[in-house]
Parts: sequence; C-alpha cells; structure tokens
Amino acid sequence: MKIALDAMGGDHAPENIVHGAVLALRAYPHISRLFLAGDTPRVEAELKKHACHDARIEIVHTTQVVDMSDSGLDAVRKKKDSSISRAVDLVKEGKAQAVVSAGHTGAAVTASLIKLRTLPGVERPAIATIMPSLGKHWVLIDAGANPDAQPSHLMQNALMGAAYARHVLGRENPEVGLMSNGTEEEKGNALCKESYAMIRKAGAQLNFRGNVEGHDIWHDPPDVVVTDGFTGNIILKSAEALSHAIFDMVKREIKAGFRTKIGGLLAKPAFKRVHKKTNADEYGGMPLLGLNGITIISHGGASAIAILNALRMACESIRHEVNPHIVEAIKIHHDSTTAAPHAHAPA
Amino acid sequence: MKIALDAMGGDHAPENIVHGAVLALRAYPHISRLFLAGDTPRVEAELKKHACHDARIEIVHTTQVVDMSDSGLDAVRKKKDSSISRAVDLVKEGKAQAVVSAGHTGAAVTASLIKLRTLPGVERPAIATIMPSLGKHWVLIDAGANPDAQPSHLMQNALMGAAYARHVLGRENPEVGLMSNGTEEEKGNALCKESYAMIRKAGAQLNFRGNVEGHDIWHDPPDVVVTDGFTGNIILKSAEALSHAIFDMVKREIKAGFRTKIGGLLAKPAFKRVHKKTNADEYGGMPLLGLNGITIISHGGASAIAILNALRMACESIRHEVNPHIVEAIKIHHDSTTAAPHAHAPA
Repeated sequence: MKIALDAMGGDHAPENIVHGAVLALRAYPHISRLFLAGDTPRVEAELKKHACHDARIEIVHTTQVVDMSDSGLDAVRKKKDSSISRAVDLVKEGKAQAVVSAGHTGAAVTASLIKLRTLPGVERPAIATIMPSLGKHWVLIDAGANPDAQPSHLMQNALMGAAYARHVLGRENPEVGLMSNGTEEEKGNALCKESYAMIRKAGAQLNFRGNVEGHDIWHDPPDVVVTDGFTGNIILKSAEALSHAIFDMVKREIKAGFRTKIGGLLAKPAFKRVHKKTNADEYGGMPLLGLNGITIISHGGASAIAILNALRMACESIRHEVNPHIVEAIKIHHDSTTAAPHAHAPA
Repeated sequence: MKIALDAMGGDHAPENIVHGAVLALRAYPHISRLFLAGDTPRVEAELKKHACHDARIEIVHTTQVVDMSDSGLDAVRKKKDSSISRAVDLVKEGKAQAVVSAGHTGAAVTASLIKLRTLPGVERPAIATIMPSLGKHWVLIDAGANPDAQPSHLMQNALMGAAYARHVLGRENPEVGLMSNGTEEEKGNALCKESYAMIRKAGAQLNFRGNVEGHDIWHDPPDVVVTDGFTGNIILKSAEALSHAIFDMVKREIKAGFRTKIGGLLAKPAFKRVHKKTNADEYGGMPLLGLNGITIISHGGASAIAILNALRMACESIRHEVNPHIVEAIKIHHDSTTAAPHAHAPA
C-alpha cells in the first residue's frame, strides 16, 4: 500500500505528523511506500529525532505551506507547491493510493475535489466520521466538507453514508437518520425539510428512520446520521470538547476532597476506558467520501497517535474499496428516480 | 408575581407540571398568583396527590391539548382552547406577568409571537439558554425558536443575548461569539458569513470576538454564543444527551470491576456535583427573548424539579425586566446603522 502524507499540515506539524508516520511504519508492514510531502530539512530533522531510516519513506520536497487564513480555493490555486497540493498530486498521478492530511480542511477538500474529481453522480464530497455512543458506533456525514449544502447533496450523503456503513462497518441494512431539531416530520429548517422529502422518496433503497434530534445521536443513534458540513462540524467538535470538559470537571471535583481522591485513584481504569472510547485521537482519520480517490482528513490538533490511526484508516480504505459501492448506490438511485414515471406509464 | 403555567404541556403532563407548581409555591412566597391552564379534573387530581390547597392557585379550564405532530401555527389557529393558548392569553390580558410551558416548543413560540407580538425592531423571538462550561456559564441564543433564520435575526440575537448577559448574568461588557465551523473570519455557511459582517458593523456596541467553533464553546466560551434555532437546538440537545451518555459509560465501566466499584462509591459525591452542574433540570427554563411579554420554555421531558426551576426563572425574568434593555439596544443599533452615512456626509 502506498500512501501520501501531508507532513506540514496541522497545528503540530511537522513534528507530530512525522512521529505518527514513524509509528505507522513500525505498526503496518503492509505500507510499502510512504511519501512525506513537506520541507525536506525539517522532515529529515524529525525523522532523525526518532532514529528512523525506513527505506519505505520518500520525502517529496515542497516549498509552500497553507495558512489557516487562506481560503480553500486560494490555497490550491495560489500555492501549487504546498504540501497538501503535492500530496494530492501523488494520488492523481497514481503514485499513491491515498492521501492523509491534518492541515486546513478546506484546502484538503478543495485540492481533492479539483485534482481527483468526484465520483459519477456525486456533486460534493462529504467527510464521514465514526462516532461512539453507549451502544454501537455510528457514521456522521458530513462532518465539515460542504457547509452550504443543497438537498441533493444531503441525499447523496445518505447514499454514501449507507454504503460506508454497509461495506466498512459491516452493517447489513444500515438505518439512516436525518439530523434535525426534532424527530417529527414537520421539524427542521428549509434544507432539512426538502432533504427529508427527497430521502423518503428513495424508498426501499434506504432504510430511512426519518429525522433524528440531538438526544437520539447519543442515546439511540441510527447507523448513519446525515447532515450538512456546517452542522456536522459543530456536532463533531462540540462533542469532542464537551467530553473533555466533563472529564476535566470530574477530575477537579475528585481532587477537591480526600475521600473522593482515593475513590478517583481506584476508579481510574474505568475512566481510562471511557476516555479511550470517546477520544478523537483513537479514530484519527475521517474519509472524504465521493471522490475518485481516497483522502483521509485528520484534525488540526492531531497527535502522533491520531496520525498513526489516520494512516491505519487510509490502509483500511484502500482495502475496503468503498468507492465502487458508492458509484453503484448513486446509479441505482438515479435510475430508479428517473425511471419511475415510465414504470407506471401505459404499455 | 403572577405566573401562568401550561399544565398540559410536556411528556409527563399534567403530573410533573402540577408537582413542580406545588414545589414552587412552597419555595417562592413572592408568587402571589399561579394560574394552571389545563383540564380541571386532571389538574385537581394531581393537586390532591400532593395535598395542595394553596389559595394562590387558580385553575383555568381548557379543553384542548396540542399534539407533537401539530405544526406551531395550526396549534395556535385551530386549538384556541388549548392549555398553551389560554396560558399566553392570560399574559396578553395582563392577568399574568409571565407564562411557562414545557409543551410543544413551536406552539409556545407561535402563540407568544401571535398574541404578545415582538418588541419594537425585533423580527423574531429567540430562545436564550444558559449553558455550563469548565469556567463561567454562557448564553446560547437561539436554542430552537427560529430554525430558518436570516442574518438580521442573528444580528438581533447578538443584541438580545448581550442585553441578557449584561442585565441578568451581570457581565459588564459581555463578549459575543458567532457559532461557526471554524474560528477564522472566512469560515461558516452563507448565513454565518453574512451575519458575521453585520455583527462586525455594530462596532463598539457589541464586544464581538468573531467566530467560535465547537471546541471553544466548552473550553473558552464567550458570554454569548449566537446561532440560528436549528443549530442551537442541536447543540443544546446533543450536549444534554452526550453528558448523560458519558456518565452512563463511566458508571458501566466502574461496575465492571471490584476495585473500580469501591472507587466509584468513594468518588460518588464528586460525580454528583458535576452531574448537578451539567443537568438540564437545574436550569429548567429558557426565556424566549424579543417578545412584548415573558415566556419561559422548559423541555418536553421536564421533571417536577425542572418546572420548579422554570418557575424560578419566570420570577427572575419578571424582576430583571430585561425587555426595556433589549428595546434600547435594538434602538441604539438601528439609529447608529441608519445614521452612519449622514455622520460622514459633508455639512
């Protein structure tokens, strides 16, 4: 497996990114080539820190870095020699099978969209992310690629999310819910209401629960929760931050008394298990679905462990080959909605 | 203080609502009149359960109940004798100073909007809710009244939220943030970007931090977080549910071993304190700001304690008189934005 890594993307780049790469090369022998796109001296200095001389590494020297204040489009058009642009180029040229970036999400999405193009019938790519809950894991789509979504984009998110849940998470007939401000059909903003009608029309192709609200996604989530990239990003980031905040509050209260302090020490393994379950670094990477290629988005503050896990996600995505299933689902949907009137036409 | 309570609104109505009323009458001697709008025999039966014969209670008999499947507008137009309609009527007629409902939010918003009307210059009411964090509390506005908001509505939410933070929470120069999918100015969906420009233009009238993202609201929130009713409702409900889910996960892991079980018992007081801090019932009620009157929204699953706290919130709202401050803030903003071109015009 050949993977391109944006070595300069992220709040702690290149140090955490290169460190994650070193960990991944040790853990995953099936990675045959790992391209590190970035500033050669800085990347080499980081590799040296970890005494890493792995022959599978190939540094691709780049001279530009995308700033968080760049727009996604500017980042791609004006910074052709940025680490993210060059990393995506490697996939476009067939040298790598997947690209991983913890940098500017808009730049990674735009570079992938422009260079790799979308799959047939897909209008916009969407970030799929696996979320924990008390019971099963669920897929949130879109977690931030497309903040100004149209109903047809949400319809495609539903089809892509269901294909992902089926072929990657192994859910037989994945249940799909539409994120809303209430479970009743008449709830939602205009985008949500139009999307509801469109998804409902897909009939048997989608196992549609209907609207889901904020309570449902943590207590009784469907396999796939469909939303726009604005709402999805807020759900994802606020869940990460709130779970940290709750652990911090508990820690502070535990430290406030002697008895609770002893209790906290004894109960520590239980906390650790929950923390591991809810920690974003454990997931590390989120596939950008709908592209003619594989792009894995990691979060800006990614630790080395997060990068290790994002590279694992890239390997899994190469292995699962979900793209042909997405193409098929979109085609079936397209054929059924355009063929429907003829099916009932008089012979 | 005279308050009207929608006795039939909520998942556990009238039992929890009447129980909450009984608790509030015991706790708050400054309530001089409590109207219970609902089905007289059922309300009387609940009062009997608690052996409550408080002379401050006046039952206002109603014959209709709003269903969750009714639209907000239908609920008000077609069910004129519903408990929420009649409860709002009491405020309109000047018999009560505030109304409290844990029923259908859309119906409570629409009834209040139609019967009480908005304050001068306010286009849409918005639900303000007080949220906890590691440090200070913050105000989320709008938590669900107006899911299809326009930029001018978000601008007004910013002014109303700041007035609330100043005059109710006592924040001197409340900092305002706009909910987005990233902190940079260019982040956001179309609504967010237009609202950003409009709020920025308010200049010194608002202490505007700019965009805030999901991480900020739990780690370093401004005093006021401005958003539309769709996004705000999802933030509110998913935060409530996620904090419950985390406590449930911790409980399950603690019970899994002997050592952790003992630890959990010792640390219990610490958990209880955090749970109390993050429990929605402790806040109980959310004011619907921007109305020519006081409406307090409680959540559908409200417990008796939540209703008690919602009635406390109603008393506080009557005492704080935030409405004149909202009118003033909207007027100052209106005058400054319409006068601005003239100020620089040649003499």
